[in-house]
Amino acid sequence: MSGHPESDLYHRQGFGRASGMGGRPALLVVDFVAGFADPAQFGGGNIAEAIAEATHLLGFARHRRWPVAHTRIVYAEDGSDAGIFARKVPGLLALTEHAAASQIVPELAPAPGELVLRKQGASAFFGTGLAAWLTHHGADTVVVAGCTTSGCVRASVVDAMQHNFRTLVATDCVGDRAIPPHQASLFDMGQKYADLMTRAEIERAAA
Amino acid sequence: MSGHPESDLYHRQGFGRASGMGGRPALLVVDFVAGFADPAQFGGGNIAEAIAEATHLLGFARHRRWPVAHTRIVYAEDGSDAGIFARKVPGLLALTEHAAASQIVPELAPAPGELVLRKQGASAFFGTGLAAWLTHHGADTVVVAGCTTSGCVRASVVDAMQHNFRTLVATDCVGDRAIPPHQASLFDMGQKYADLMTRAEIERAAA
Amino acid sequence: MSGHPESDLYHRQGFGRASGMGGRPALLVVDFVAGFADPAQFGGGNIAEAIAEATHLLGFARHRRWPVAHTRIVYAEDGSDAGIFARKVPGLLALTEHAAASQIVPELAPAPGELVLRKQGASAFFGTGLAAWLTHHGADTVVVAGCTTSGCVRASVVDAMQHNFRTLVATDCVGDRAIPPHQASLFDMGQKYADLMTRAEIERAAA
Amino acid sequence: MSGHPESDLYHRQGFGRASGMGGRPALLVVDFVAGFADPAQFGGGNIAEAIAEATHLLGFARHRRWPVAHTRIVYAEDGSDAGIFARKVPGLLALTEHAAASQIVPELAPAPGELVLRKQGASAFFGTGLAAWLTHHGADTVVVAGCTTSGCVRASVVDAMQHNFRTLVATDCVGDRAIPPHQASLFDMGQKYADLMTRAEIERAAA
Repeated sequence: MSGHPESDLYHRQGFGRASGMGGRPALLVVDFVAGFADPAQFGGGNIAEAIAEATHLLGFARHRRWPVAHTRIVYAEDGSDAGIFARKVPGLLALTEHAAASQIVPELAPAPGELVLRKQGASAFFGTGLAAWLTHHGADTVVVAGCTTSGCVRASVVDAMQHNFRTLVATDCVGDRAIPPHQASLFDMGQKYADLMTRAEIERAAA
Repeated sequence: MSGHPESDLYHRQGFGRASGMGGRPALLVVDFVAGFADPAQFGGGNIAEAIAEATHLLGFARHRRWPVAHTRIVYAEDGSDAGIFARKVPGLLALTEHAAASQIVPELAPAPGELVLRKQGASAFFGTGLAAWLTHHGADTVVVAGCTTSGCVRASVVDAMQHNFRTLVATDCVGDRAIPPHQASLFDMGQKYADLMTRAEIERAAA
Repeated sequence: MSGHPESDLYHRQGFGRASGMGGRPALLVVDFVAGFADPAQFGGGNIAEAIAEATHLLGFARHRRWPVAHTRIVYAEDGSDAGIFARKVPGLLALTEHAAASQIVPELAPAPGELVLRKQGASAFFGTGLAAWLTHHGADTVVVAGCTTSGCVRASVVDAMQHNFRTLVATDCVGDRAIPPHQASLFDMGQKYADLMTRAEIERAAA
Repeated sequence: MSGHPESDLYHRQGFGRASGMGGRPALLVVDFVAGFADPAQFGGGNIAEAIAEATHLLGFARHRRWPVAHTRIVYAEDGSDAGIFARKVPGLLALTEHAAASQIVPELAPAPGELVLRKQGASAFFGTGLAAWLTHHGADTVVVAGCTTSGCVRASVVDAMQHNFRTLVATDCVGDRAIPPHQASLFDMGQKYADLMTRAEIERAAA
């Protein structure tokens, strides 16, 4: 994010140091489901490109036998688990277990043994077993792909960092429906929570 | 946030509905400590103005006998509780219990009976008793002031919403060291997590 | 629990005060599924009697329009979400989404609008949205039925109390595969975490 | 716990398998503070013996450079963080930061770099940074000492297991004010949550 107008100030105040990649990474793929891939629903922006790039990252993770977790937003048919998030964004309630919009896109379909988490919040960690699952797999690092950058990706990145996993955002594998929020969240995450790396950089660092 | 270039897209996709104010609000004041009020440390931008405005909001909350909670970032002298956040921002480790920089600014000094939370993460909820304390006080709404908008305020707002408290950001009582991240996070929060209201609007809504 | 040999000691040390019933109770029914109702699987003891009594409590809760939540232990078919609990008790892995053993018993079948939580741990709160759901419904009190008293009921009661919900154990609506652990956990919960009341006492207190 | 009357039933139903010790253990010492060492306050039973034995376990852990965490129950002087636990057991409110009763016993005084957690709940994990700290230190196993066996030790053991740390209870390093609840909780923990090992067995397993 060099060149960002706030970079100097943040650097002077000591932000933006690297947390680095540990020896036991896991891959987290956030909400790459049909409804977020569709510009007519919750999609748009650079999400399609991010999905395309993420298919390569997922392939790399599987080749390296990293633990892989996927998330979907899923609400009960009767709305019994709806809360404030669904009040702010009522359309989320259409993302039920069998709705087409809540299915993971085919190119990223989970393989057997990969974790698929249903969530009703923004963060992949909130009200789910994700942190415990990462502990069970001995992960020390979470590599994050998914959408949206300014939404569920960022909320998940903040939590991954707070749980003390080294956190890497795969910058070309995360997307958002509009680019300015995408860029703004990448800047914030890089300064405070996570290391920003392209897929190629992550694959080299893991070599 | 009308006039924001992304507003139309978000509106079409159904974002940005109101969650509203409930009948039992609590006030959360995030990290208004000396080190964040000082532009030479972690401060700058519009934080001074936000503190000035927040003193009035705190006075209002006390007059209405709302439960009030304050947060401070506090690390142990020996660094035993440091984690990834302190690796990204090493200067945070100077915020120890008795350091001048970690003291709440005098104009917002906690009154007896108000909760003071020490935290090592970004969100006021992470690794603290805040959600349980709000439950104990029967709160259904969290009004948020503090700094920084793009950092600990936003992380706390996301969690307040996920815990299903109606969440209001007091837009003139939150501040950040740089204005573009402040603005970007206000937009994101208003679209997805919280209602954006000035102090005056909050006081009228609570009347 | 008067007459329990430790009662005097606990009373002298100040344990066992009442937390009382608040004005907005919710009912939590823990793991009353076929596999725990069957003595050949995880059942036995007084679980059948507890289920019979719990049907009346559920009817009362519905009549009063209390929020109602049910839990089931559910593991993924491929075991991708298994952890230490399943290592200690491997048979739990048979409790998959469609397994007969993991279905809620017919006499307690959830009604539309009641929350059904899948969990992989002991506590109904761990890795689930239960606390946030209780907040969304404005609950201040959790009435607990289910099984087993010394297992998932107790773990849920400890968490309900820690989240600062007043917690009532419906003593005749909780059961265990063996009676001494049932009795020992009732004593501990009554001294430290929850009020012990029969179904009839709870219904009178709610009148 | 062979010889326990329920052992056969639990064995037939598949409980009580070993979770085993991993390669990166941490030591958790729960609430060994003056007030729980004093039979006139919250102590009694076998707590004194457990403290004596735990001093050796702590020495072993330090020699092996295991991460070590201690907990204390600490409430604010003004009671601002009191909740339901303090309503059930009002005497806990005397355990303030500087009260003699809330100080860790001298023979187990924390060394520099060891984590000291303040808590207001039963579990060492609830509302604290413990899980994130264990992750930061790469722990895969939690060895538990402390008091009381049927109270904060058990609540912490349930959570350690739920967070997917292999959990070992050091049976001669945990104590309770009365022996029957101590024995009942050891049985339950061994069947469902943790492996029961004496200090000597743990030290041999770690060799």
